[in-house]
Amino acid sequence: MTGMRTIGRAAAIGGGVIGGGWAARFALNGIDVAVHDPHPESERVIGEILANAERAFRKLTMAPLPPRGKVTFHANLADAVADADWIQESVPERLELKRGVLTAIDAAAKREALIGSSTSGLLPSELQAEMKHPERFFVAHPYNPVYLLPLVELVGGKKTAETSLTLAREMLSAIGMKGAILKKEIDAFVGDRLLESVWREALWLIRDDVCDTETLDDIIRYSFGMRWAQMGLFETYRIAGGESGMRHFLAQFGPTLTWPWTHLMDVPDLDEALTEKIASQSDAQAKGLSIRELERIRDDNLTGIMQALKGARDGQGWGAGELLKDYEARLWAGAEGGDAASIDAAKPLALHEAKVNPAWIDYNGHMTEHRYLQVFGDTTDAFLRLIGVDAAYVAGGASYYTVESHIRHLGEAKIGESLSTTTQVLSADEKRLQLFHTLKVGDRTVATAEHMLLHVDAKAGKACAAPAAVLDRLLPIAEKQAALPAPDGTGRHVGQKRN
Amino acid sequence: MTGMRTIGRAAAIGGGVIGGGWAARFALNGIDVAVHDPHPESERVIGEILANAERAFRKLTMAPLPPRGKVTFHANLADAVADADWIQESVPERLELKRGVLTAIDAAAKREALIGSSTSGLLPSELQAEMKHPERFFVAHPYNPVYLLPLVELVGGKKTAETSLTLAREMLSAIGMKGAILKKEIDAFVGDRLLESVWREALWLIRDDVCDTETLDDIIRYSFGMRWAQMGLFETYRIAGGESGMRHFLAQFGPTLTWPWTHLMDVPDLDEALTEKIASQSDAQAKGLSIRELERIRDDNLTGIMQALKGARDGQGWGAGELLKDYEARLWAGAEGGDAASIDAAKPLALHEAKVNPAWIDYNGHMTEHRYLQVFGDTTDAFLRLIGVDAAYVAGGASYYTVESHIRHLGEAKIGESLSTTTQVLSADEKRLQLFHTLKVGDRTVATAEHMLLHVDAKAGKACAAPAAVLDRLLPIAEKQAALPAPDGTGRHVGQKRN
Repeated sequence: MTGMRTIGRAAAIGGGVIGGGWAARFALNGIDVAVHDPHPESERVIGEILANAERAFRKLTMAPLPPRGKVTFHANLADAVADADWIQESVPERLELKRGVLTAIDAAAKREALIGSSTSGLLPSELQAEMKHPERFFVAHPYNPVYLLPLVELVGGKKTAETSLTLAREMLSAIGMKGAILKKEIDAFVGDRLLESVWREALWLIRDDVCDTETLDDIIRYSFGMRWAQMGLFETYRIAGGESGMRHFLAQFGPTLTWPWTHLMDVPDLDEALTEKIASQSDAQAKGLSIRELERIRDDNLTGIMQALKGARDGQGWGAGELLKDYEARLWAGAEGGDAASIDAAKPLALHEAKVNPAWIDYNGHMTEHRYLQVFGDTTDAFLRLIGVDAAYVAGGASYYTVESHIRHLGEAKIGESLSTTTQVLSADEKRLQLFHTLKVGDRTVATAEHMLLHVDAKAGKACAAPAAVLDRLLPIAEKQAALPAPDGTGRHVGQKRN
Repeated sequence: MTGMRTIGRAAAIGGGVIGGGWAARFALNGIDVAVHDPHPESERVIGEILANAERAFRKLTMAPLPPRGKVTFHANLADAVADADWIQESVPERLELKRGVLTAIDAAAKREALIGSSTSGLLPSELQAEMKHPERFFVAHPYNPVYLLPLVELVGGKKTAETSLTLAREMLSAIGMKGAILKKEIDAFVGDRLLESVWREALWLIRDDVCDTETLDDIIRYSFGMRWAQMGLFETYRIAGGESGMRHFLAQFGPTLTWPWTHLMDVPDLDEALTEKIASQSDAQAKGLSIRELERIRDDNLTGIMQALKGARDGQGWGAGELLKDYEARLWAGAEGGDAASIDAAKPLALHEAKVNPAWIDYNGHMTEHRYLQVFGDTTDAFLRLIGVDAAYVAGGASYYTVESHIRHLGEAKIGESLSTTTQVLSADEKRLQLFHTLKVGDRTVATAEHMLLHVDAKAGKACAAPAAVLDRLLPIAEKQAALPAPDGTGRHVGQKRN
């Protein structure tokens, strides 16, 4: 994954749900984002989206995200885009408005910047018509929530360079997204054409009282919705064709196409009566859940689905899960090792901080037991990176494995509280590494952990001496820390009387 | 859930992919199934589907399934249906054929039996036209794979009794399925009308080279496919409408309905050239995976998605996951229970099982450290429930808190592996409870945990004696377990030499 081209700075022009979703996706990936949106509430809206996005990402992945990028707000469009490598336009869906904004972006942007439009239907050739440098412009159509769903339809216009599309796909990949390049521009592209055809048919079914909105939604989500979360239309039908394959399936399916099953060209009149019917059925269906609650449920569900797909094929991953797996591998590879030489080893090391996540709370309102060990494990990982044991090192076939842990619970941590750890090396030799972590909320110690780790050859599955590159970093730290007093609680066994 | 009406015996008339899927769904739920299908290979086909179904169900749930129902094959239709409470017809999609088969079923079935048709498009009024007892007939349209996907569209004809539909829904619920009752009969019902509209549009997009089949599938599965696995069309758009709600969304969306975005009434000619194009693109997309491999991947993905949705809303479940949770609760309720009085305390207690969840895997492909503590914590909870410390007890203001833990890692657990624990009480008094858990994958011990817990008054935040109701259950178990030898690894401190 070395050499992947990435976005240094980004700009979001238009900061509604979609523009804000882009800003969040960039910022979570460590990219500074300059936002321009004349709407007076833009800063509040983006702040809320960013909070949702951080919540979702903390559930999505345990891989180390880079420090969050800065989100700045600019009254002037030219200021916002000046330094950006990727400028994403997400203003309302009117051709003249978009074209004007894009032409202004084109004039103020760096010569080599990429410019994407979030339009869900307008043709890139029409949007780029007045640009001076249209070859770096394309449609980059995302799906809500942009910070979680990976898909971006990439559509070039007549003047778009093919290299802009492939570069865009590469840069999107670095922020965990999936760029799908279309071969031709067409109104509404691919995704929204498919959605539109379903939507039209669904409106008829509700209008004609074949079912209500809840039943229609259930029919989708208890059946083909789950199929489509992991395979699309064609691959699903490939399986339906069985051993005789896709040709056989098409031969069977073909004739039914001419059956009068859909309303086809009829367009339902979305008048007041139909609007009212749908809206009141939808209210009943929501069973009192607010939009914010539904959003959190949706985000958690999407997160869980992507994690499930990450585990597919014995951990190789499948579809969006394979994408997540590759993304995480890059995050681990890119995590800063820290600098063993510059650290002050004459005192316990402060290597990790975290916040008590809403998902970590038990039915008592306290942080659940095993989440303490998660924070201690992340602290151990931070120490290991410090001595050069990072993702690349692990990929090389060696690692430190924890063989024994002792945890003391001395207090409680509640939702949203800030946690910090300190680490003391109790002992270390060629193979063994004994660590003691202290976990605090402010000045209050809430837990401690003592761990014994062994350096192992992962393939052989047995302990072996760490190489000089690791020991040269580890042993000087261990030597300095040996002079520190042993922390309270070391060497205890469970149930031992306190001194 | 007591009093839920269930299917005693079932018959499957027609044993292809759909009929075989029904037979598997019934048999896995302990229901004997009589199959009638003149096809010479029917027995082999159903055997293969049953094997797939058992594999998938073992991954889907750890709840105790009843002993598998017997699947028998009958040359004579009347023999197959004679004793059945539910008869499911799944013969080829031709009106005259189906009507003939259904009339024969009607004549041979018990008077009170329900009769469902798997048709994906024919009207129930036409199918039931020649029946003597048409009031117990309805369309029960399932989705492939029938043994995993829960949805069944229930559609009555003119002569169908409403009570037949509600009884059918109840009986389907008992076998883990979701019956969605339509208000009106209509060609192709709801699901296939929606699918048909997408399919038609997709054929155009491939024919016109806007994208290939793989890109189209990716556009579905990296975006709205995942949304639809957990919320349908209307609930998703409800969220898109934001705080201003569904009416606002419809007002915005309305006008675009008249835009020329879909091919509408044009029907693509599925001629030899288009068939060949789709089939060859689909071959390329499959990357050499056979139909059987794709089926297993699909089944694992669906299983993982339903498990992820089961964990939604802090374990309350959502959609297909909530359905799975309720289904499992019934399976557990129907299984033989253990209570403190009946348990054999003269040996370590087997109280908890789990499966290594895809979200529990680290970048090495092993179960992450803190997930071991999660499984141990769940084991502790199971023990506490056994002595009467359940959710109601905790809500009353008292609980046991873990104050100290010691964990040894002795092996590794990988994705999908089944975990089981045993628990030994090392010591107990009025306030203190010392437990030792052993975690195994098969016969292999992968970790142990020793915990000290204190009984606490949660409001006062300090230890207090447990009440007699708890001690009367706890102390007799502790006394019997005191006679057991101390397990290897008790009383160790971190770094202690092994004996």
